[in-house]
Amino acid sequence: MGMKLLEDRIVRDGKVKPGDVLKVDSFINHQMDVELFTEMAKEWQRRFAGKTITKILTIEASGIGIACMAGQQFHVPVVFAKKAQSINLEGEMYSAKIRSYTHQRVYDVIVAKKYISPEDHILIIDDFLANGCAVEGLIDIIQSAGAAIEGVGIAIEKGFQRGGDMIRSRGIQLESLAIVESMDPETGKITFRE
Amino acid sequence: MGMKLLEDRIVRDGKVKPGDVLKVDSFINHQMDVELFTEMAKEWQRRFAGKTITKILTIEASGIGIACMAGQQFHVPVVFAKKAQSINLEGEMYSAKIRSYTHQRVYDVIVAKKYISPEDHILIIDDFLANGCAVEGLIDIIQSAGAAIEGVGIAIEKGFQRGGDMIRSRGIQLESLAIVESMDPETGKITFRE
Repeated sequence: MGMKLLEDRIVRDGKVKPGDVLKVDSFINHQMDVELFTEMAKEWQRRFAGKTITKILTIEASGIGIACMAGQQFHVPVVFAKKAQSINLEGEMYSAKIRSYTHQRVYDVIVAKKYISPEDHILIIDDFLANGCAVEGLIDIIQSAGAAIEGVGIAIEKGFQRGGDMIRSRGIQLESLAIVESMDPETGKITFRE
Repeated sequence: MGMKLLEDRIVRDGKVKPGDVLKVDSFINHQMDVELFTEMAKEWQRRFAGKTITKILTIEASGIGIACMAGQQFHVPVVFAKKAQSINLEGEMYSAKIRSYTHQRVYDVIVAKKYISPEDHILIIDDFLANGCAVEGLIDIIQSAGAAIEGVGIAIEKGFQRGGDMIRSRGIQLESLAIVESMDPETGKITFRE
């Protein structure tokens, strides 16, 4: 079930554009409403209650703010996967290739091996889930490390794209705080999954 | 004066590398200790007490986590400047060119005009200050928007590089929580400014 505070905000401030684009850059991924993020983090804590979480994994850049608020609620460190190689990252890394439909290219994401151990129980957090490529890349990295995937927390899932089904069919607990079932660029109307 | 909690953590977990490189990716810019970030945000709140702050501006990617914690303390939205053009960012933008010595290239950063208004009183937050190019770019953007710059909050300043002096000489309040005066890659010794 959706988180009403977030759904209401999407209806109020989100903008539907042609090509299944939902723009939420006034409160999520350019300007960030951190008080909303705190409420979202508390909601994930309720939904993942009872699970052991030792670390949160996200991907730069727009996942970082939300993931930090979740780290604060869960009292665990947050690791963000970096896009492409940075010369300041030493040692061995896990990597995965991710296709970005937004930016129409494939890029590598990397996580230093020392920051994910086989003892970790990891919660993935990200702002959007559409085709699921970013989350799949993070799952690959966690599996390479031999760590446990405790779940995936997403702010906004596009329910009409394949990412959600892909994660659920793997038996991974997926908690999307708002699932958009359909949206109409003509009228701006957004319908959420019940 | 330095923030002891942060200085102690730098001494414990930071690594000094040749070429004036201080690696803090175990707690600041790859893995993030969000509880430390919360304490840093509280410290900035003390140091900028009495100032009107309406918005925090940072730059992707590693500034975002720290800036979000500051936004939480100051109860204001956080905007992050984006590197290069994103096709999902509509409308007009402010932009600045920034030279990255770490990545040895020049890149554009952009902020959508609608997220900085002339009425804004802005606090810049970032993880590192060395030559000051990133902060200078953000200052340019704020000045283009006609907004007020209330100050700059930095986690770690390299006191032996020119960025800090450049900002202070412009009369801008700069609050670096740890100022590294010198560091020795041979012994690993880090000296902080008193």
